[in-house]
Parts: sequence; C-alpha cells; structure tokens
Amino acid sequence: MGSSKTIRRLEVVAPVPADIDIANSVEPLPIATIAEDLNLDSKHYDLYGKYKAKVLLSVLDDLQGSEDGCYVVVGGITPTPLGEGKSTTTVGLCQALGAFLDKKVVTCLRQPSQGPTFGIKGGAAGGGYSQVIPMDEFNLHLTGDIHAITAANNLLAAAIDTRIFHEASQSDKALFNRLCPPNKEGKRTFADIMFRRLKRLGISKTNPNELTPDEVRRFARLDIDPNSITWRRVMDVNDRFLRKITIGQGPEEKGMVRETGFDISVASEIMAVLALTTSLSDMRERLGRMVIGNSKAGEPITADDLGVGGALTVLMKDAINPALMQTLEGTPVLVHAGPFANIAHGNSSIVADKIALKVVGKGGFVVTEAGFGADIGTEKFMNIKCRYSGLVPQCAIIVATIRALKMHGGGPEVVAGKLLDHAYLTENVALVEAGCVNLARHILNTKSYGVNVVVAINTFATDSDAEMNVVRSAALAAGAFDAVVCTHHAHGGKGAVDLGIAVQRACENQTQPLKFLYPLDISIKEKIEAIAKSYGASGVEYSEQAEKQIEMYGRQGFSGLPICMAKTQYSFSHVPSQKGAPAGFVLPIRDVRASIGAGFIYPLVGTMSTMPGLPTRPCFFDIDIDIATGKVLGLS
Amino acid sequence: MGSSKTIRRLEVVAPVPADIDIANSVEPLPIATIAEDLNLDSKHYDLYGKYKAKVLLSVLDDLQGSEDGCYVVVGGITPTPLGEGKSTTTVGLCQALGAFLDKKVVTCLRQPSQGPTFGIKGGAAGGGYSQVIPMDEFNLHLTGDIHAITAANNLLAAAIDTRIFHEASQSDKALFNRLCPPNKEGKRTFADIMFRRLKRLGISKTNPNELTPDEVRRFARLDIDPNSITWRRVMDVNDRFLRKITIGQGPEEKGMVRETGFDISVASEIMAVLALTTSLSDMRERLGRMVIGNSKAGEPITADDLGVGGALTVLMKDAINPALMQTLEGTPVLVHAGPFANIAHGNSSIVADKIALKVVGKGGFVVTEAGFGADIGTEKFMNIKCRYSGLVPQCAIIVATIRALKMHGGGPEVVAGKLLDHAYLTENVALVEAGCVNLARHILNTKSYGVNVVVAINTFATDSDAEMNVVRSAALAAGAFDAVVCTHHAHGGKGAVDLGIAVQRACENQTQPLKFLYPLDISIKEKIEAIAKSYGASGVEYSEQAEKQIEMYGRQGFSGLPICMAKTQYSFSHVPSQKGAPAGFVLPIRDVRASIGAGFIYPLVGTMSTMPGLPTRPCFFDIDIDIATGKVLGLS
Repeated sequence: MGSSKTIRRLEVVAPVPADIDIANSVEPLPIATIAEDLNLDSKHYDLYGKYKAKVLLSVLDDLQGSEDGCYVVVGGITPTPLGEGKSTTTVGLCQALGAFLDKKVVTCLRQPSQGPTFGIKGGAAGGGYSQVIPMDEFNLHLTGDIHAITAANNLLAAAIDTRIFHEASQSDKALFNRLCPPNKEGKRTFADIMFRRLKRLGISKTNPNELTPDEVRRFARLDIDPNSITWRRVMDVNDRFLRKITIGQGPEEKGMVRETGFDISVASEIMAVLALTTSLSDMRERLGRMVIGNSKAGEPITADDLGVGGALTVLMKDAINPALMQTLEGTPVLVHAGPFANIAHGNSSIVADKIALKVVGKGGFVVTEAGFGADIGTEKFMNIKCRYSGLVPQCAIIVATIRALKMHGGGPEVVAGKLLDHAYLTENVALVEAGCVNLARHILNTKSYGVNVVVAINTFATDSDAEMNVVRSAALAAGAFDAVVCTHHAHGGKGAVDLGIAVQRACENQTQPLKFLYPLDISIKEKIEAIAKSYGASGVEYSEQAEKQIEMYGRQGFSGLPICMAKTQYSFSHVPSQKGAPAGFVLPIRDVRASIGAGFIYPLVGTMSTMPGLPTRPCFFDIDIDIATGKVLGLS
Repeated sequence: MGSSKTIRRLEVVAPVPADIDIANSVEPLPIATIAEDLNLDSKHYDLYGKYKAKVLLSVLDDLQGSEDGCYVVVGGITPTPLGEGKSTTTVGLCQALGAFLDKKVVTCLRQPSQGPTFGIKGGAAGGGYSQVIPMDEFNLHLTGDIHAITAANNLLAAAIDTRIFHEASQSDKALFNRLCPPNKEGKRTFADIMFRRLKRLGISKTNPNELTPDEVRRFARLDIDPNSITWRRVMDVNDRFLRKITIGQGPEEKGMVRETGFDISVASEIMAVLALTTSLSDMRERLGRMVIGNSKAGEPITADDLGVGGALTVLMKDAINPALMQTLEGTPVLVHAGPFANIAHGNSSIVADKIALKVVGKGGFVVTEAGFGADIGTEKFMNIKCRYSGLVPQCAIIVATIRALKMHGGGPEVVAGKLLDHAYLTENVALVEAGCVNLARHILNTKSYGVNVVVAINTFATDSDAEMNVVRSAALAAGAFDAVVCTHHAHGGKGAVDLGIAVQRACENQTQPLKFLYPLDISIKEKIEAIAKSYGASGVEYSEQAEKQIEMYGRQGFSGLPICMAKTQYSFSHVPSQKGAPAGFVLPIRDVRASIGAGFIYPLVGTMSTMPGLPTRPCFFDIDIDIATGKVLGLS
C-alpha cells in the first residue's frame, strides 16, 4: 500500500477546460503498470491495446483467502435532467483516496452505452478533473462487451422466430428427426443441451429412439405463443425507427409476420445477467434459464429449450471479465456491465466489485456507483445486487448539488440543452433549504439498510457558502454520518480529500449488518408495496394487465425473486414533475415483467422508453478524427 | 529469415481428427512472440488478449523504404457447395513456406462472419492440420472489427431516418437554426463537417448568417427520397426474419413508416471500404462519400451530407488495423476484413497485404485468399483490389479438387449436409478428365492478367493417382506454370512443400506487368461486357431497371468506377447448375447498384441473398463452454 508508482499529479487550470481537452492533456500510463501496481500477475489479465486490459475471474481463485477492502456505494438525490455528478464524484473520491490519502483503491463503473455518445448525452467517463481515460476508448467499443451482448441477444431472437417458422411447417416426427438426426452410423443422439429440456419435461430417457410419440411431441414442439414473446432484438444505436417494427415480410418467410421492436443493447436482459452473475458457471445457468415467452399452454420457454444457452455463454465468455482502465490521477478503474437503470437495476457488475474488494484487500477501498437517484439505484444495489453477491457496504454516499436542491425547493424547470434559469446561478438559500426535504428522505431511506451515509455536496462555481452550510446542517439533522463539500470537478482528487476522510471514518464506524427492505419470501405485491412505501406512497394500484402478470409469475414459480422497479428517476413518485419529497400518492403499476435469467421481476410504473432517438443535430456532427494524430475530436 | 523461434512441428494423426480437436491440441504461442519473430517493434502492435494483436498502420511509415516480398493470390475452380479448400490451402502453403522452406511468410485471410458459425457452415479458419488458431477466437468477435462495422453502418441508418423525420416537421429556417445553433455568445458557426456539404453545393461562405434563404434551404434540407434509399441496417446474425421489415410503427414516429431490411454485417459497404482503403485519411474520405440514396431531385446524398462521416471513421479507427494470429505451425497470419464475395469483392484488406509485403521483405512471401471461384474472386482481386492498391501479384494459385472436377465432368449433384454420391468416393478418371474444362478456363482467365498460374490439387484420401495425373496434365496443357498435388489437410505444411517450391519458382519466373481485364475509362456497359466475356458469355442483356441505374450512375459521375459482378460462384454462367465451361449464353443483368465509398458499381446477375437463415437444427445446439477449463466446445 502507499507509495504507488502510478500516481500522477494534475496541474489544474481555471476555468475548467472541456472534458475532452483535459482527457487529451494527460498521457495515460501503460495499463500493465496500473495492473502491476495492483499486484496483479500477468496471468490474471489480458491486454486490449495499451490502455485497457481485462482482469480475468481466475484472480478470485488465487485471492480466495484474502480479506476484502471497504465497500462504498455512491447514490444521489433525485437529479435534474443534467445529472448531479455521481460518476464524477465516484472518480474524484477515488483519486483522493488513491493519490492523496495513500489508500489502495479501485473505482467500479458501468460501461456506458455507445448509442447516446452520438446523440445528445455525450460520454460518461466523469467530468472536469475527475475522469476515466482514455475517454474515447471508455465511451466507444471498450473491450467489446456490449457488442457481445448485442450478438448474443440477437442470436436468441433469431432462434425464436426460426423455431416458430420451422415448427409451423413440419410434423412432430419430421421436426424430431431434424433435431436428432442420425449420424454416419445411423445412430441418433441428443445434443447435451437437449437434456436440459428433457429434464424440465420430466423425461429421463437418453436414447432418442425410446421416446413415445407424446414425448417426441412435447420435446420437439416448443409451441411458442407469438403473442407472448417478450424477447426483443437490440442495437447499441439510438434508432427510434426500430422501436416498433414488423418482421418476416420477405417472400421466403411465407407470411409469418410479427410485430416486435428493438431496444438499445444495454436494455437487454443479457446485460442484467452480466451485471448480476458471480461466475462462468453461474452465467451459463442464468443465460440458459432466460424466459423468452410462453408456450400456448402457458409454460415459460427458455433459451435452453431453444438449444442456445451454451452458444450465448460462448459469445459472452470474454465479456465476463471486467475492463481495467485508469483515472486522470493514475488510480485503477474497473469498468463492467451497464444495465439500464429503469427496467433493470442500473449497477455495475458483481464480479468487478468482488475482484476489486480482494485486490485492494484490508484497508483498501472499492467505490461503486449506483445509477439514477438513490430511491432507485441504491435501493436496487442493496436489495438486488448485494442480495445476489452477499457483499455488504460499509458506507453509502449521496451526491447532492445546490442546483438540484433548488429545483426540489420549487425552482423553475431545468431542461437539458437550454440555458439555466437565473435562480440557479445566484444565491437563493431559501430555495436550497426548502429542497433539502428530498435529500433528507434519501438519507433516511439509505440509513435504513444499516449503513453510514455520507453526503457529498458536488459544488459549482456559482454555489455560495451559505447555501452549502444549509445543506450540511440539513444532512446532519437527517441522520447523515457526515456531509462534505467537494470540488473534484475543478481540482481532481485534491478537491475530494475531505470526502475521502469522511468516507474512511464512516467505514471504520460501521457496525450494523445489512438490513434488506423486504425479505424474498413474501408475495410479489407485498414486495412492491414495501418499495412503494420507501418512495412515500400511501398505496399501490395495479392495472388488470399487472394483476394478470403477477398471477402468472406466481403460477410459474417465480414469485420468490427480488423486485426491480421501473420508475422515473426524476421524482420519488411516478410523476416526474413532483419534486421534493412527495407523499400520500398511490403508485400505479401499469404492467409487470420479469428477467428470469438475471433474476428479478420488474413492475412498470409508467412507460419506459428502451430506445432513445437522435435529435435534429446529434453530437455526431462534431465527432471526427484528427488524421495526423489519429486522436478523436469532438467527443463530450 | 530462417531459424525462426516460432516454428512448431506437428505430430499428425490418421485419420485426421475433427478440426476443433486439432486446434485445441496445440498450445498457441504468445502472439508477442510471433510479432517479435516478424521484427515488429512493440510500438507497432497492440495486444488483444494473449493470442491476438492488432498491427498498427504506422508500421508502414517505418518500413516505407523496404522492398516488398512476393505476392501470391489463391483462387479456386468453380466449387461444389462443400468448398474446395481455398482457405486450407492458403494456410497449408504458408505453413510449408514458413516451417519447412525457411521463408519469411505471412498469410492474409478474411475475417469470417460470426452469423454462419451458429448456423450451418461452421467456422472458416482452414481445416485439418492447416488452420489458424485459436479457432474460437478467429471465428468469434476476433478484435471487434465486424462489431465496429455493425455499429457504424447502423448509426448511418439511424441518421437517415431521423433526418427525414426532422425535416418533415420543420421549416427551412427552424431546421437551419437547429443545425447551426447559437453558442453562449449568440454566435452561429458551421461544424467542420458541414463545409463538405457546402462545398458540394458550391457555397463558399463560412458564416451561417450570410446564407441566402435559398442557400439555407439547399444546405439544411437534404430532401431524401425515401424510395431511393439503398442503405440497409446490418446484423452479424443469421436472422432471416429481418430480410424485409417495416420500421417506424411506434406512435412517436407519427406514421413515418417505411419498408427496409437487414443484411448480414459483412455485406455492409463499410466492410468493402475497410477492405479497399489504403490509410486512415483515405478511409475518412471513402466513408464520407458513401451514397445512401438520392434527393427527390436525383442528387446523390452522402454520409457527409448527413454529418456523420467523421463519427463513422471514429467508430472504425481501430478496425483499420489488421489482426495478427498464427497457424498451427506457428507462422504469422493477418486476418482483416471480409466483404461479401457476391455483392462486394470478397478479398481481404489492402492494408493487411501491404503491411505483410513490407514485413516479410525481399525474399519473403505473402499469400492472400480471394473468395469464391477464380472467375469472381481472382477477377475482382486483379481488377478492383490491385487497381486500388497498386500491388502486383507474382503468382496466382488455383485450388482444384477431384471432387469438384468430377462434378464439372457430369457427376451427380453435390448437396451440403447430404452424403456424397458413390461417384465421388471411387476412381472415375473419365469424369475427372471431362471436368478439367472448368479448370482450363480458370487457368486461361487468370493467365490473361500476365501472372504465372500454379494449380494446387487439394487431395482427399479417396483420390487416385490416375485421377491426379489427369489433372496435372490438363493443367499444364492449359498453360499452368505448374500443377502440384498437396496433402496439407492431412499433413500440415509438410504436405504443401512441393506447392511451396512451385510457387517460389513461379514468382522467380514472373516477368510480365499486370494486365487488367478492362480500363476504367470505358463505359459501364463495356466493362460489364468484358467481364461477361471472361465467363464465356456471348452477350449481356439488361433489364429496364438496370438500364435506368446505369444511366443514373453515368449522370451522377460514377461511371469511371470498376465493376464488381454479383454472380453465383457455382457456375461460370448465371445458372448454378451449368457446370464445366458453359459458353454462348447471354448474361442477364437484373439490376445495377453502387458502393460509391468502397469504389465500385455492382451489377446483379440474379438474386443475391444478403441475409442467411438458420436451419431447424443450427450448429448452436452443439456449442457450449467447458465450465472447468473455459474452453469452447462443439465449434466446427
């Protein structure tokens, strides 16, 4: 620990330059140097170019006996559409811990979706002097994990439609003969994967010739109900015209048309599987049991029923290894998985966190980010991610900005792409004070998991001391362990040293066990209601469709799964315009769906867009390559 | 040269085991060792895991003054649907040259499409004891180039539909204001990429405020004719249900529906661009000038008109670097690009060949494969690839099998997946002799480029000496420089030593300059007719649609491009069942399309499928992962 070879001091400039200019001003260290500094043996990582590596899961076997470091999760208050700097704070805090406080530290971040990089949003590597570099590699392709997810997701989609097509044109017998064709010696055998389906059907025979005609039919005919198919195709591009499409209109498809659509790749259940899996064998099982729809008799049909669970695992075998990168100040970062924070759980991967905790060891720190506001991100971190990983955080951070608190206190609407209202650029202590109800509820909720809460006030140049003092007092009054003003965007790790000290103290003072918000063995509705209560709802109302789905999942044996609420992040309630700490509302559940392979039920509170679009003038107009240097221009 | 550290002797077993078993039986060398053996400095390559690297184009700058090695292209006779072993022969020859004849050698291969790996076909890494390893990495993901192509292709597709959508709902003025929004100081500027469109429009103003209303309209309104759009979306999955689809059916798309479809990713024009580009700046220009359709006034609309040529280049910036792998006997392989051999030119990349020629240097050999039969693959290699690269081959190989020659001599139909007819498994000299007309025409055509032709007879255990002698005699009679029996499938490089010696002699005796089949400055029709004549056609007939397209491309200024015929590979003619050397037929041109960025016009002779499907029992049933070892099972 300490005296790291990789630490690099930043020379900061004011006003803060553009993110890409800061990122390009720092020469990254060879990633092998970062890996060595983490005591990783070369057999435990694979290089992907000079500045990226994949850390192999095998490192967990070698470090099995080692103690874990401290585990810190970063959530936020209910954000404005501009975001309140959770990623930036996560990175800045680690730069402070590693480069200024002499701690072993690993930052765990989600891999951003490539689509929005060319749309409105820009990248997701942090900002200012708290960034992951190289920024272009972080935002584009990385080590190909999302591409692997796209390939696997769409292979499964093709398998579904093709199977329906072939079943429609063949007798049970013909279908069976094709599935189990005779080899050169005329002998029929089952492929290994077919035994999974046979087992589900309760057939223990191993010789295809011994199946009765009824068993042949049950085995060979999946009889998928096209209207029940929930599996969609995906693409890592903002392509709104694929949201709803009709497929199968070619003449060879003989009229077997069907309405379906594309989601953005990070919305694939396979991304959620990647984020929640704990090992290669666990991933194989999760991918195989993903449910794509039902048979006409109402039985769930899985990827393994289609014979494709093994192939999906093969496509994902490298993606399971987290990518190692670095911050501007040379501290290590693991980038891995990026499930949607609305229809999925919005947290980076369990395996990255596990590797990081072992690698930093006792006395070290792992800081992991939870997407969206803490009502969603931290809640899902605790009740879904920690439940599957068995890991326990010692500290939870809540990132707050004066800007967002003013909005919660009644400030004018904040709209992305439009200039900020005057109220946000000049001192207004009353607005801030009124807005602290939002922060207070997030603190209360987060504390209920039995964890110490540290509030990080992510400051802007326009924030006043009086405003910041109000937030500090409100945070402490609400039960925060500490509340700290940070300037890491402007100053890098140096600006988050106080936060680092507070986090360290919070971890040292953590004594309680992790308390989940709900146990798994209550009903789906009771679990939904427990979460709704944490939002401030007085009750829950279910649509007819939601009731039907809950009944179905119960019947299919899936009611023991945790719940992953698909709700707006812009309010505790389902109404984005209800800022502050709304209470007494009835939360409407429009529909209930499930990611059985990933392992959660997700109720839809309102409509969730799973495929963004491009504006009239997308970011891509500014993106080009400098032919002379090969450097990427215009990324933001 | 010589005494290479990387050479590995194979211990061969008979009968030849399954490809995957041979591939898994050999421990690959660290790819850095292969790179060092090629005298590549570590600054000239990036590792991608332990067994793959990307060789950076910068190596060309450093080796600018060096002499090139000998350049050998591998084509084949008109094949059966089983394939006649072009890739295997390419690999086997290089194993012979490198591991037995002490030559510096680099094999240049195409990256296979991932889709068919899970369908019927299996992989494309060679076969038997002549393979590229690790076979699973060769066939899946590799270094992500095809994924990058998919991402770039589909970003452009999304940009097209989005632009039409936004143009439909906004006035010229509003559109212009969005495209050139005022910055914080209220000043409007053009993005750099916009000057490309302004230039095409003949507008030299640099201040947006100075444009006249007419100029504003012409600049901001692309006015794309939806019926003219030729740009389709792509996916590297065999998904037949996407061949023809209707998009835009979501409520937010307000009824702007359109019929379109997906091709498999390797059919993307961007793949053809990657294969034909010569540098980063050349790729930037080619990507920018790709034509996606016409304006309603009939003007071609390019990727740069849409503002996305720079972003496409950024997505492709790593893909331009070829992937370095190795053969079973430790000789180096560059895997790069894999354009469709029907609608595109079916050859691996120019940059890989260029790098390879410099790296092996004088006295060394570069062996590159041309997809499909020589009527298509070698023809396009000469007239398109060599025309753009300026490279000149010293020797052309034609791979022949007794099996395919028997088919051309009148043997029964050969069908993939069905057992071979008796005629192919026992001696039948008469059938072979009759079939040699096919080989003879390929020799004649290939010789016409002024290159020495060596015939490689790729043998099977069932071939007889008498049959092989007939082929040798026929080849020499037709003007081949040499004709050699090879057993590299069964014996690795050792089985292709004679071929290696013949190739070396052919290169040493090469004296003529490269003669193209047609000059570029004749009309599109004259060029098509020159190629048709080489097929044995007595004439060409054009559909009304083809006439219309030829007229349009002429009007748009594209008639100076080379021609890339989209024709079946199963016959010299357009009728797959016409084996041997058909003559006197009239070649029908159904339609004519263009890949302006890649740089060719492609006439369609018949219907070309650009999206394969999955059978009832796809390969994926057999593919899984060995959880204990992490090894891939069941790939073929």
